[in-house]
Amino acid sequence: MNKLTHFDETGQAHMVDVGQKAHTHRIATATGSIQMQKATFDMVMSGSHKKGDVIGIARIAAIQATKKSPDLIPLCHPIALTRVAVEFIPDESNSTIHCTVTTENIGQTGVEIEALTGVQIGLLTIYDMCKAVDRGMVIKEVKLLEKSGGKSGTWVAD
Amino acid sequence: MNKLTHFDETGQAHMVDVGQKAHTHRIATATGSIQMQKATFDMVMSGSHKKGDVIGIARIAAIQATKKSPDLIPLCHPIALTRVAVEFIPDESNSTIHCTVTTENIGQTGVEIEALTGVQIGLLTIYDMCKAVDRGMVIKEVKLLEKSGGKSGTWVAD
Amino acid sequence: MNKLTHFDETGQAHMVDVGQKAHTHRIATATGSIQMQKATFDMVMSGSHKKGDVIGIARIAAIQATKKSPDLIPLCHPIALTRVAVEFIPDESNSTIHCTVTTENIGQTGVEIEALTGVQIGLLTIYDMCKAVDRGMVIKEVKLLEKSGGKSGTWVAD
Amino acid sequence: MNKLTHFDETGQAHMVDVGQKAHTHRIATATGSIQMQKATFDMVMSGSHKKGDVIGIARIAAIQATKKSPDLIPLCHPIALTRVAVEFIPDESNSTIHCTVTTENIGQTGVEIEALTGVQIGLLTIYDMCKAVDRGMVIKEVKLLEKSGGKSGTWVAD
Amino acid sequence: MNKLTHFDETGQAHMVDVGQKAHTHRIATATGSIQMQKATFDMVMSGSHKKGDVIGIARIAAIQATKKSPDLIPLCHPIALTRVAVEFIPDESNSTIHCTVTTENIGQTGVEIEALTGVQIGLLTIYDMCKAVDRGMVIKEVKLLEKSGGKSGTWVAD
Amino acid sequence: MNKLTHFDETGQAHMVDVGQKAHTHRIATATGSIQMQKATFDMVMSGSHKKGDVIGIARIAAIQATKKSPDLIPLCHPIALTRVAVEFIPDESNSTIHCTVTTENIGQTGVEIEALTGVQIGLLTIYDMCKAVDRGMVIKEVKLLEKSGGKSGTWVAD
Repeated sequence: MNKLTHFDETGQAHMVDVGQKAHTHRIATATGSIQMQKATFDMVMSGSHKKGDVIGIARIAAIQATKKSPDLIPLCHPIALTRVAVEFIPDESNSTIHCTVTTENIGQTGVEIEALTGVQIGLLTIYDMCKAVDRGMVIKEVKLLEKSGGKSGTWVAD
Repeated sequence: MNKLTHFDETGQAHMVDVGQKAHTHRIATATGSIQMQKATFDMVMSGSHKKGDVIGIARIAAIQATKKSPDLIPLCHPIALTRVAVEFIPDESNSTIHCTVTTENIGQTGVEIEALTGVQIGLLTIYDMCKAVDRGMVIKEVKLLEKSGGKSGTWVAD
Repeated sequence: MNKLTHFDETGQAHMVDVGQKAHTHRIATATGSIQMQKATFDMVMSGSHKKGDVIGIARIAAIQATKKSPDLIPLCHPIALTRVAVEFIPDESNSTIHCTVTTENIGQTGVEIEALTGVQIGLLTIYDMCKAVDRGMVIKEVKLLEKSGGKSGTWVAD
Repeated sequence: MNKLTHFDETGQAHMVDVGQKAHTHRIATATGSIQMQKATFDMVMSGSHKKGDVIGIARIAAIQATKKSPDLIPLCHPIALTRVAVEFIPDESNSTIHCTVTTENIGQTGVEIEALTGVQIGLLTIYDMCKAVDRGMVIKEVKLLEKSGGKSGTWVAD
Repeated sequence: MNKLTHFDETGQAHMVDVGQKAHTHRIATATGSIQMQKATFDMVMSGSHKKGDVIGIARIAAIQATKKSPDLIPLCHPIALTRVAVEFIPDESNSTIHCTVTTENIGQTGVEIEALTGVQIGLLTIYDMCKAVDRGMVIKEVKLLEKSGGKSGTWVAD
Repeated sequence: MNKLTHFDETGQAHMVDVGQKAHTHRIATATGSIQMQKATFDMVMSGSHKKGDVIGIARIAAIQATKKSPDLIPLCHPIALTRVAVEFIPDESNSTIHCTVTTENIGQTGVEIEALTGVQIGLLTIYDMCKAVDRGMVIKEVKLLEKSGGKSGTWVAD
């Protein structure tokens, strides 16, 4: 039967034992988006082609954030990421920017949280850089798209 | 005319000068939610009343995260928060948990990003603790609700 | 003959070479306690059963601290912990709370410092949360109980 | 009546509001000690006069740790320390080294936790550097000696 | 007579007391450069106009590094920077990129170390991104150009 | 043909995939120096023999900094260093102190950046501790001396 593995049998939180798990190649992809006003979207987009590169800065923030998951999420294991890639896709008709982060490692525990942290901080960096002109931006639908590796194998979002 | 203040006139990113701004009392409130399966929601909720306190741990993670915004968001100023409060509200009919974070300081720059960071990491901690039983959880509608203080005064989301 | 291995033959501090050591399963358990007034003890204990969970928060702080040892202790190697467990045991007759932290990894260097860091910060978090009512609390007898793995094998405190 | 201020009236942890408190000059002094074997004590002491300076390294670790309290202790406010001093006093007859840390700031919240963090990490650094020759060292009696400033004024340990 | 203020009268390192110093507006500007092969220089320069923006990433790393000085430099006080600006100037005839960082705060201690940290990490980020094609790059002449504010007033490099 | 590997084929920065690279023993040695006034040099040198040990503190700062490279350099992989050694060599005739840092690991990516970070922060710590008497000190010629291990094998500076 399912239970929350971050608690032991007496209900106390712990960092679960992964020492006996196999070292496998693990990949996770997470996604999310930020919706803004049309004028804000246009400013961001014009920047990525010339000066004032909001997207470039958000990409760096996202990559760096993936390395900080164990510091941010209490029961997250420290892991050594072997690859991080971040993609931003503009959706002009909805004045929305989509962010996708892929993380990889060869290890005993997965990299889903690292991918999700990257998406969150990448999108929040866009918010930070545009907030002076648009405080009402909304970060939406942050979720795991797919993961592979480990005992539970491959999982793909519906 | 509006422009992105995180870039100077030549388009280079900088941490903007706040040295001449007034020290005012600033408050920001941000919100967001995480939607999960009914069974996951029930597990989390039963925990907050007795053992295995997912919500209690997420609250601590949210508070700690508000202190890390300047480390996570490249152009965010270091600030000294004077208060942080985090509330989680369960919405049983939608198997959703809402998170609200309020941050305060007396300073030269606002605390919106700190509140938003707290919401994101609080919700991601719930994801982390429940992911073994429900990888499809979705973090939704992370946004600023209200802020006050500073030159731009009070702002309230529509 | 014994010598302090953190110094080379000329007396200069270094982070010692562990690159040729075997990857073994290492476990360390450390302990310590905090003594307080009877009234403070009663407040903490009532909290762990219902609201205001001092112990739950101290546990999270202890777990997170074990991940920060390389950042806190100058010559400590970065390592990837595979398990962390924290237990608090109340001792009503002495108005004392005992903390025990167990850390594990599979690696080239031990996890004793990580366990001790967890004990220290777990107990200090209790101090922090109760200091408004009892500044005279004392943290006592922080020490290693047992460790196994590595070239020096198993060690148990007297 | 006394209560634990880190919890609100519903029992939820928060970082308490210090925004309305006065900016006063605050000083805290904390102490603690580490007891070791006679041979270990002699090694450490010989080092502080010539090569292999355990005490010098522990002092730096203690100072740096005082700056990390808000990162280590969940509900601790970020503050700007204006002074940190660390003293180690050898007690040859008991093969013990005492550590005293004094912290100061001009601010809205006290610096007791910072002083205690410094003592703990200073002593643990001694443990780390000597553990290869003496795993049974014990960290003892870590406590606040005195604090001044703030609404509650001066407090001195019995 | 001059002495090193980071040591007390007995020669022990401390974080010096700045609590009684005036809060003044302080500005520091530091500079440094990285010299590389002609082919490497051309690759970097072509990137800043279109894809693969080495300079843009180095700028973000420099800004973030200025916030980490108290964590990197043992006796550095924590301070709240109010402005950071980073400029990179290419010198084609010498295949060299110059970096200038300006930091500001209103506080009790200066921001020279923050500016120098920014220069160092900005240049090292360029090294990191180009090292696969040119390991022989050299970071040169990192120094303070000018500082103002505080008791010692304005200082300008020869 | 050479290209900057930190960018993918579309020019977007990423943390490059090292997951398929061999785990090899990697060593890097970097160097740099700081030039100061004769009087400053004499102060620093007298300290390393008795009280006020500037060099000892700079060595600790350098070692700790090598562990922070992934946090400072955006596209740097997290790695587990297995050895760090730092040497300072005084050059009296030029009032200069040379710093050499050697880093090692057994892993999928090199440790050059870690060695260079150590040199930079070690030298900047000297600057910090002496700046009250000599603001004009210059950090010079920070560069890689040699590296071995990995696919590209051994490299030695000209």
